[in-house]
Amino acid sequence: MMYTHEIETFLEEDLGYNDISCKLVPDNAVEAIIFTKEDCTLAGIDVAISFFDYFGIEYSTDHSNGDRLSEKDVIFTLKGSSLSILRTERLVLNFLGHLCGIATNTSRCVDIVRRHSDTRVACTRKTTPGLRKYEKMAVIAGGGDSHRFNLTDSIMIKDNHVKMMGVEAAINSAKEKAGFTQKIEVEVESSADALKAAMAGADIIMLDNMDPAAIIKTVDFLRNSFIPEHIIIEVSGGINMDNLEDYAKTGVHVISMGSLIHQSQWIDVSLEIVVNQEI
Amino acid sequence: MMYTHEIETFLEEDLGYNDISCKLVPDNAVEAIIFTKEDCTLAGIDVAISFFDYFGIEYSTDHSNGDRLSEKDVIFTLKGSSLSILRTERLVLNFLGHLCGIATNTSRCVDIVRRHSDTRVACTRKTTPGLRKYEKMAVIAGGGDSHRFNLTDSIMIKDNHVKMMGVEAAINSAKEKAGFTQKIEVEVESSADALKAAMAGADIIMLDNMDPAAIIKTVDFLRNSFIPEHIIIEVSGGINMDNLEDYAKTGVHVISMGSLIHQSQWIDVSLEIVVNQEI
Amino acid sequence: MMYTHEIETFLEEDLGYNDISCKLVPDNAVEAIIFTKEDCTLAGIDVAISFFDYFGIEYSTDHSNGDRLSEKDVIFTLKGSSLSILRTERLVLNFLGHLCGIATNTSRCVDIVRRHSDTRVACTRKTTPGLRKYEKMAVIAGGGDSHRFNLTDSIMIKDNHVKMMGVEAAINSAKEKAGFTQKIEVEVESSADALKAAMAGADIIMLDNMDPAAIIKTVDFLRNSFIPEHIIIEVSGGINMDNLEDYAKTGVHVISMGSLIHQSQWIDVSLEIVVNQEI
Amino acid sequence: MMYTHEIETFLEEDLGYNDISCKLVPDNAVEAIIFTKEDCTLAGIDVAISFFDYFGIEYSTDHSNGDRLSEKDVIFTLKGSSLSILRTERLVLNFLGHLCGIATNTSRCVDIVRRHSDTRVACTRKTTPGLRKYEKMAVIAGGGDSHRFNLTDSIMIKDNHVKMMGVEAAINSAKEKAGFTQKIEVEVESSADALKAAMAGADIIMLDNMDPAAIIKTVDFLRNSFIPEHIIIEVSGGINMDNLEDYAKTGVHVISMGSLIHQSQWIDVSLEIVVNQEI
Amino acid sequence: MMYTHEIETFLEEDLGYNDISCKLVPDNAVEAIIFTKEDCTLAGIDVAISFFDYFGIEYSTDHSNGDRLSEKDVIFTLKGSSLSILRTERLVLNFLGHLCGIATNTSRCVDIVRRHSDTRVACTRKTTPGLRKYEKMAVIAGGGDSHRFNLTDSIMIKDNHVKMMGVEAAINSAKEKAGFTQKIEVEVESSADALKAAMAGADIIMLDNMDPAAIIKTVDFLRNSFIPEHIIIEVSGGINMDNLEDYAKTGVHVISMGSLIHQSQWIDVSLEIVVNQEI
Amino acid sequence: MMYTHEIETFLEEDLGYNDISCKLVPDNAVEAIIFTKEDCTLAGIDVAISFFDYFGIEYSTDHSNGDRLSEKDVIFTLKGSSLSILRTERLVLNFLGHLCGIATNTSRCVDIVRRHSDTRVACTRKTTPGLRKYEKMAVIAGGGDSHRFNLTDSIMIKDNHVKMMGVEAAINSAKEKAGFTQKIEVEVESSADALKAAMAGADIIMLDNMDPAAIIKTVDFLRNSFIPEHIIIEVSGGINMDNLEDYAKTGVHVISMGSLIHQSQWIDVSLEIVVNQEI
Repeated sequence: MMYTHEIETFLEEDLGYNDISCKLVPDNAVEAIIFTKEDCTLAGIDVAISFFDYFGIEYSTDHSNGDRLSEKDVIFTLKGSSLSILRTERLVLNFLGHLCGIATNTSRCVDIVRRHSDTRVACTRKTTPGLRKYEKMAVIAGGGDSHRFNLTDSIMIKDNHVKMMGVEAAINSAKEKAGFTQKIEVEVESSADALKAAMAGADIIMLDNMDPAAIIKTVDFLRNSFIPEHIIIEVSGGINMDNLEDYAKTGVHVISMGSLIHQSQWIDVSLEIVVNQEI
Repeated sequence: MMYTHEIETFLEEDLGYNDISCKLVPDNAVEAIIFTKEDCTLAGIDVAISFFDYFGIEYSTDHSNGDRLSEKDVIFTLKGSSLSILRTERLVLNFLGHLCGIATNTSRCVDIVRRHSDTRVACTRKTTPGLRKYEKMAVIAGGGDSHRFNLTDSIMIKDNHVKMMGVEAAINSAKEKAGFTQKIEVEVESSADALKAAMAGADIIMLDNMDPAAIIKTVDFLRNSFIPEHIIIEVSGGINMDNLEDYAKTGVHVISMGSLIHQSQWIDVSLEIVVNQEI
Repeated sequence: MMYTHEIETFLEEDLGYNDISCKLVPDNAVEAIIFTKEDCTLAGIDVAISFFDYFGIEYSTDHSNGDRLSEKDVIFTLKGSSLSILRTERLVLNFLGHLCGIATNTSRCVDIVRRHSDTRVACTRKTTPGLRKYEKMAVIAGGGDSHRFNLTDSIMIKDNHVKMMGVEAAINSAKEKAGFTQKIEVEVESSADALKAAMAGADIIMLDNMDPAAIIKTVDFLRNSFIPEHIIIEVSGGINMDNLEDYAKTGVHVISMGSLIHQSQWIDVSLEIVVNQEI
Repeated sequence: MMYTHEIETFLEEDLGYNDISCKLVPDNAVEAIIFTKEDCTLAGIDVAISFFDYFGIEYSTDHSNGDRLSEKDVIFTLKGSSLSILRTERLVLNFLGHLCGIATNTSRCVDIVRRHSDTRVACTRKTTPGLRKYEKMAVIAGGGDSHRFNLTDSIMIKDNHVKMMGVEAAINSAKEKAGFTQKIEVEVESSADALKAAMAGADIIMLDNMDPAAIIKTVDFLRNSFIPEHIIIEVSGGINMDNLEDYAKTGVHVISMGSLIHQSQWIDVSLEIVVNQEI
Repeated sequence: MMYTHEIETFLEEDLGYNDISCKLVPDNAVEAIIFTKEDCTLAGIDVAISFFDYFGIEYSTDHSNGDRLSEKDVIFTLKGSSLSILRTERLVLNFLGHLCGIATNTSRCVDIVRRHSDTRVACTRKTTPGLRKYEKMAVIAGGGDSHRFNLTDSIMIKDNHVKMMGVEAAINSAKEKAGFTQKIEVEVESSADALKAAMAGADIIMLDNMDPAAIIKTVDFLRNSFIPEHIIIEVSGGINMDNLEDYAKTGVHVISMGSLIHQSQWIDVSLEIVVNQEI
Repeated sequence: MMYTHEIETFLEEDLGYNDISCKLVPDNAVEAIIFTKEDCTLAGIDVAISFFDYFGIEYSTDHSNGDRLSEKDVIFTLKGSSLSILRTERLVLNFLGHLCGIATNTSRCVDIVRRHSDTRVACTRKTTPGLRKYEKMAVIAGGGDSHRFNLTDSIMIKDNHVKMMGVEAAINSAKEKAGFTQKIEVEVESSADALKAAMAGADIIMLDNMDPAAIIKTVDFLRNSFIPEHIIIEVSGGINMDNLEDYAKTGVHVISMGSLIHQSQWIDVSLEIVVNQEI
């Protein structure tokens, strides 16, 4: 769901105050298709629809977010005035290109992981400013996990908290200050701290910047220590598509990768006018 | 220059309504550095400063947008309360990572072109929604050209205008409707249309989706036809870092590449706390 | 932390476009105190400070949010121009009156519960539109728990989900769709469903509209069934200050009461000018 | 009338960015009723309709703002998609609960006064920040008077103006500075000042913090002094539902009570789904 | 008082996203004056100061709104960076030119009236969209009256109300629906209706589109009918600077003229840099 | 095209929070006309339509922006509820009055010029703050040229740039810093500088504050110097309707006049209800 004020903020950026090009030709009745020029995982379909609705453009689609598309697959068929379609074209394509890029990058990573495990692949707070909610939904479309949305969502105890207070004291303080609906996550750098965190009541233990071998050892250590089953073990730091496979075999629950978003590149999505008639 | 309402929109996205993590530890007096973990071209330094000013964080820097940095180069040295620095950290790094990514991608393309010519490398309207002004400034930081900002900036006569009206009629109509401060650009697909456009008074002729050989021929043809000297010849369509060199040798004035922005990836920029003292 | 645009939205509502009263007398150098006329628990001190900062009013205070104040206790001592202080007076008092009302109501409930247990007292999404973040922080100031902030914060499986899908299927679907940082809460109406929820992996089990006797039975049943220790048992529905004590003895972890906020009434907080000198 | 940007600001607060609960079940065709669980005076019906219109929910109602409802009376019958109804439910109920609380509190005070006189009961500028226009309309729905909306609406000469300038000089200054469409109100603490104010041209005389006996004396004194008939006599300060009756007998035109709003509590209004069918 | 979001809305309109002109030369330390090139009445000085404060430009002035200035009089002396001063120049001059134009037009009308009477000269709701508060303050600066600001400020009973309900019924309905702080104004077209309005309790009687002779007769008739003294008689409709003198002699309290604003023209106000030094 | 948030900002200014006048009479089915009381050139028809659409008012019109209308010509015929039409009346008339004033002023100037030449008449950045896009479109409706919209649109090299750097250096710096889609304009005060500018690659040469005789000489000089044909020669400074004819004969391409906007006065446009029936 996209709010009117969001739609208009994006439109104003692209239209400016007086689009003269569109005044050169009459406002025709037009049919158009939006299609992908590359294999991709689809995202942003709801965003595109918000713009079509705003301009009164009729649309139909056979797809939903998360679908795997092949080159030349049609995403939308559109019907409307040429003026409306031209006004929304660039913006809709920019959203689709960017969001399909993220979904595709995510689904590639998920595919790599799925060969070995059910481990989740999650993004982080490394998102393009102003676009977090769209980008996180694109990660979800690609089969990934959104991780927390902002600093309020859940409590993250960072290395400097641990240094200043120790793991147990930090968790106890967090439990007291956090709401009961919020999970508490702790960033640790050793097996010992990981166990302390589990015993002190952390919901999520994040193994920070450990290599796969160290992760496997820590996971074993924690399992052998009979930590509560609901505790989620996450790894993060320096993981990319090239080394992902090694992490997928470690048995953790979640692999977090800022690169799902910040190393993604746009998918080439295009609009083509197929019927153009005088009104 | 960044407006207060822009700064706050970005902050609200990342902070939410109650950051509990930052309440776990006291608000200390902190010194920190922001440095790059990769060679890059710098952009977004003014954006970062806007956030520091908003939070009353003291900063110093030896660099300006466009500087070429090496791995580990320090971009900013900061002084302020730990709470303020932690609140602005993620957002500033997201901006720097994203914008340096674009500037670096741009400067790499510019470097390729410079081996052969003074041809400008320009971005397009393929920009991340909501971030166009920041991304275009990053392209400029990387030595590129911003191209037009929105549909109002200059007049673009597209292929479907040409089909419906012919080149001359379209240009004449545009000249009448455009303000005298606006340039008129025409998208053409043949040498013949390019010449017609030049003769009819276009300021910019864009050779759309031509291969380098066809471009060279068209450029020669136009020069031999003694078109006015101020006319700018631009090429666009399917140009990327791999085939860029071929276009750099064609003698055109401008090479436009959406990929400067949409195929860029973030530079890894990081913040490290170097002094942390109780107040 | 309050954003400039929030401060200004509230100010515009109260000031309108031309405050003539304040033009009747010269702009003097003024000292003033803000004090409570009733015993109360303090909240909103940070909100008040945001307005003082906006107007350049100097302030000092011996108190923090959560302090228990007695009638006539001074909350703030202020120094500034009479014009600034009069402009911000009504708005600051409205915030303090409303938020201290909520904090006081909350701390009374917490006191009742503390005679018997460590059970948390939480508010709900029944908040005054537009003021949720301020009201939830006032509940926290009063010793309460903020519960989830909005529909995104955590997953709530409601009775109609349970009716349509059954407990286990609903939880499994939620686990799949939720992010790993989000807790899953299930609303149940019977001990049997409560146990199913616990076994299926719910993080929070909400016993909906049960009377204290039924709650005690259900809690015993769940404990005897050895459900995982981290699971939080919450009760909600028809709990108010009069019957709260009975719920406090049930051994649940959390008692949720919309009435913390929606049955609160303002505390009488007042501003008095103590020095008024010509500039 | 509620503006799109107001509707969306309130919605964003409650929805956040990704409501997962509503994705657990299919989007059904639903009929629902909104009804009151307590006797009350109705307010906010127009606000609720704005949200229904925004979501395309069909509604019907037999009531208007100001109606006295009994427990279980149905306020709205709704038809629409389950997703839309669930998205708007909490927000609409929060508005109705809060505003009906104010209208009900007001109508109770008006009923007390009506046993003795036609005196108006008015609210003040003690309103919940951000909600003044809604709350004042609820007071009107309850039979009360909105008093001035903000500092611009009419001129209020306060005790400190009187102290610094004297009654006559303050009124003369106000008459000069005020627009001719604005009434001038003076806050006085003695009969003598009340008469001075009346003679100097005040439109409204507010007897501040006088007890009922003193008010009766002052009203007699002013009537015997033949002050102009259009002058409105208002009392304010320390009036609540318990002592209201004494003030109702004093013969003043207006009794102002901040407590109409700030001591009101929500009415329990509820939504029930009565038909739920697959689409 | 101008809010940050107002300042920024106006700035964004003029600056766009990338002011290249100001990057051609270094940012110098500059002193400048703002002066008028025509005799005028000053308005907008507070608006200008808001922009100077926003940019950290030091200013001094010997004048206040309402001052009568002669050609070449200096309004402001400024000190600041050349970049800041150039960025704010056009916008400040546009405000001063426009608002001084209104104040000057107003003071000319007031001067004409003052030769004969103390009658007030008021503007109307015919204001430039978005600028009403600034324009009404400029009318006040010119010695005029702001009249009501918007449809909420006071109650205006229009001719079509009178036609449908009759004068007395319309006033009674208005008195019931209006708050007690609001004046009730009635638009009448005959002496008979004017008297009815006065007797029914109107606060302001507006003689609509009467010629001066008819106005004089009506005023006499009303005075001889001993209507309450506080009632304000206003005339409106077709009054301009040319025929104003005739209306000034009629003895009414207020002459309303949309033309104060909508027939005003800008005063020529200019900025000159007097010192320009390298930093 | 007008955005929802623009429409609502303008409406809120005029409506306030509670329009009581419109509650005095029932909401009828109404037909109305909007007509001009003066000969004028039409502008703002699209703005008016945006408001009609917002309120669901049906409209028809025989005119478009730029049409020359005679006194009493009907601009719109409207059908809708009386409440909606009364709510939008003042705002629509204010826009039409203001914008037709500008279009009419412009078309008068264009008519004067057309007797002698095809020279364009352009407005400047002297526009009413907040209304630039509407005012520039009104100039276009009147046959004028919008000139640049803001500081980003094109590069203007001012006299102080020329003083500090010399013409050629300033232009070279601008060419380097400007995007290739932006024209470069230079403000010169002598024929010599004009020629330098032309030779250095300026697109527009603005002869600043020259009298007609000097302009004619400069134009001859430039033509005889065979400057490139595409270069536009503009004059500006002290040109008004009285002396315009002299400038029209100089052979320049563009005459810029701030007075198109800032010396315009509103056209008297009025709404009349022609059918008024109970619903």
